[in-house]
Amino acid sequence: CFPLFSLQTDVRVFSLNCWGIRYLSKHCPQRYAMIGDLLSKEEHDIVLLQEVWSEKDFLNLKKKLACSHPHCHYFKSGVIGSGLAIFCKHRIHDTFLYRYSLNGYPYMAHHGDWFGGKAVGMAVIKIGSMTANVYVTHLHAEYCREKDSYLPHRVVQAWELQQFIRHTSAGADVVIVGGDLNMHPQDLGNRLLRAYTGLRDSYLETANFDGCEDGMTLIADNPFISKKELVPFEKGIRIDYILFKGSSKTDMHCDSMSTTKGSIPDHPFPYSDHEALTAELRMEPHTPTEPGHDKKSMDQDSGKVAELVDILTEARTEVKVGLHCAERMRYTATRTGIMGLALLFLELAIAAVPWLALGAEQPFPRTSFYLLAALCCAILLTTFLLYIFYTMELKSLQGAEDQMRLAVGSLQEKLRGFPLPQPYSTHRKPPEGQEPSAFDPEE
Amino acid sequence: CFPLFSLQTDVRVFSLNCWGIRYLSKHCPQRYAMIGDLLSKEEHDIVLLQEVWSEKDFLNLKKKLACSHPHCHYFKSGVIGSGLAIFCKHRIHDTFLYRYSLNGYPYMAHHGDWFGGKAVGMAVIKIGSMTANVYVTHLHAEYCREKDSYLPHRVVQAWELQQFIRHTSAGADVVIVGGDLNMHPQDLGNRLLRAYTGLRDSYLETANFDGCEDGMTLIADNPFISKKELVPFEKGIRIDYILFKGSSKTDMHCDSMSTTKGSIPDHPFPYSDHEALTAELRMEPHTPTEPGHDKKSMDQDSGKVAELVDILTEARTEVKVGLHCAERMRYTATRTGIMGLALLFLELAIAAVPWLALGAEQPFPRTSFYLLAALCCAILLTTFLLYIFYTMELKSLQGAEDQMRLAVGSLQEKLRGFPLPQPYSTHRKPPEGQEPSAFDPEE
Repeated sequence: CFPLFSLQTDVRVFSLNCWGIRYLSKHCPQRYAMIGDLLSKEEHDIVLLQEVWSEKDFLNLKKKLACSHPHCHYFKSGVIGSGLAIFCKHRIHDTFLYRYSLNGYPYMAHHGDWFGGKAVGMAVIKIGSMTANVYVTHLHAEYCREKDSYLPHRVVQAWELQQFIRHTSAGADVVIVGGDLNMHPQDLGNRLLRAYTGLRDSYLETANFDGCEDGMTLIADNPFISKKELVPFEKGIRIDYILFKGSSKTDMHCDSMSTTKGSIPDHPFPYSDHEALTAELRMEPHTPTEPGHDKKSMDQDSGKVAELVDILTEARTEVKVGLHCAERMRYTATRTGIMGLALLFLELAIAAVPWLALGAEQPFPRTSFYLLAALCCAILLTTFLLYIFYTMELKSLQGAEDQMRLAVGSLQEKLRGFPLPQPYSTHRKPPEGQEPSAFDPEE
Repeated sequence: CFPLFSLQTDVRVFSLNCWGIRYLSKHCPQRYAMIGDLLSKEEHDIVLLQEVWSEKDFLNLKKKLACSHPHCHYFKSGVIGSGLAIFCKHRIHDTFLYRYSLNGYPYMAHHGDWFGGKAVGMAVIKIGSMTANVYVTHLHAEYCREKDSYLPHRVVQAWELQQFIRHTSAGADVVIVGGDLNMHPQDLGNRLLRAYTGLRDSYLETANFDGCEDGMTLIADNPFISKKELVPFEKGIRIDYILFKGSSKTDMHCDSMSTTKGSIPDHPFPYSDHEALTAELRMEPHTPTEPGHDKKSMDQDSGKVAELVDILTEARTEVKVGLHCAERMRYTATRTGIMGLALLFLELAIAAVPWLALGAEQPFPRTSFYLLAALCCAILLTTFLLYIFYTMELKSLQGAEDQMRLAVGSLQEKLRGFPLPQPYSTHRKPPEGQEPSAFDPEE
């Protein structure tokens, strides 16, 4: 069927982190059944799911939603998968997956993020005559806000996410992004994403919101949430989002937005440990504003660019912290490896003395000898693998930092093109004894 | 300086695989000096280098080319790096790196591709008023054409390369791709890349070619090439390319193309084991052809789509071969791991018998006991790591296959929209007893 072109098109978008770890997540099969019932009843245009870790669960959902959502895609990546799935009423014409270059550490097996192969999945969908680029993603979790060792990884993921969206969406009429960003609204990565892409937050854009206080999506009232994990945010946090933007051809608005509120009427437990998001988006052909670049919009633009430069500088600092940390870890691995090697040589030397003294009795107890040798070999192998891993982490961090530096340079070039506005002078005089520019592209 | 807009803009593009493995590649420092001299003398607009494995060499080149090519970017990835570098006369506004999901095996250390973190790097450049998206890439090497175990990896790389170029270039006026594709002109991956993106091959597009016979870039006359590696292609092969395309706004043509021919006048050896490519590209504002979709262009379009479906089907077959292979390898790793575990239990059981018999003498010689235990543990660890690696390989191959299947479905949908042309019937009647469609999107 070919929908006739109308001036206005409505799209209902749903996003949920399903918490679908088979045998580990509580009531997993029952919750998937509930999610399937909800989706087939509600018939959203676009359904963006995260943490669908098992392909079997995806296939069950696919079977159940064959009528309501005939088109779907499951994004595969990493050891377990990316956990990302899209269900859609409209045909999916194309898909593309970008795997984040950094995603935690394989030896942090209890956190499990590394095995999940976190990524951003894209689907190109035609809604009527409009092309929508739909993105679903899930960023690295935050396990401890005070001492978040994964922050540089998450900032680089946010950086790569904005790059991916910005560079792949040039041909789209509208852009829709949904997922679990694992970032609070004002967190660095979130600001970076929104400022760079111009994406708007459904929760902030709608006058018609029905859901948890402050749009929270991980709430204390959810029975699957342990309250002490949320401290110091007693009521909950907002880390799941539906973002959107139009284009030069299409305007996009959020008419209403809702979230589930912990418990579900007539059900013993909620759909997941996260709350589900639903946004009603409206697309219209773009109505051009009055022509001519007036002074105000010019100032606003330069203000935005200057804000972006500030956010990027903050992000670079965070990435540099990650770089120092990775360098220290690699140094520790190298040193431990060298100590293991030295120990092995020492042991061999001690064992060799009586052997060189031709026939003198071996003073080294055999058991200790073999145990020590095995320990040395284990140390050598582990530190070698860690060395390789940290080198790759370093390369990714350096790569992101290089790209950010280049981006700052390009933005500053743009700022120089603007007439100097009041609040942001691009040629601030540096304090004496300081480098001329904090973001020198050749630094 | 802001170049004035003229109706025609010329761009000179250079591409070279530098073979820059420090201490291993022959005459590496001397060759880099030669390359630096050439580039600073020739002043190409865009220089795309591959196999610049050491960042130090990149930084030396950067210093040397500071006047001729003030803008540059080095793409970091993997353990050693991606080896990719761009030097440019025009400002680089933005960069983006896509790491291929498959790139050989870490245990094939003598081939080294896995450690290189093969990727495609993108740079957004403004040339006059035009936006050029420039890509540089290096695909997995082909070590044995008859029994090429890396073919599925290279096909998936070509698939991801075309996805990346297609999705990121929508906003560009022109697209320029250079690099070592490690594929012959008619190889599957090359056909996939060209057919899907519409990229044109400089060598085939120009009437004005000066270089090796058949545009070869790896030739027997190059003193760094061992002739037996090229068998059965005695004279050489063409695996390096400069590809380009315009857009709806800009036409692009290749005025001339040249390659080096093995030896360099006044120098004792060539720049690299690969030949260097130079293309002179010309950009003009697009001149629209007569309006109206005539029957012929419609037929051509449907012909192209049908050709793409055929190529995709071939690619899917190749990826499936890779899938079977990866599954077999993972099965072997699992079986070996289980055997290692069984051996360990057996050993412990034998050792436990006299211990249970309270004080009876240990019949197991200690040396053998510890050696065997160490062997079992080594087997277990290795097979565990291999299992994880093969699972990731499987996920990537399955992911690519899924995306290809979806793309075939979408293309067939498109074909159904065309009026039935003579050479390609979209509703071919299948032979009796055969499935209705070889590319059923729901298959």
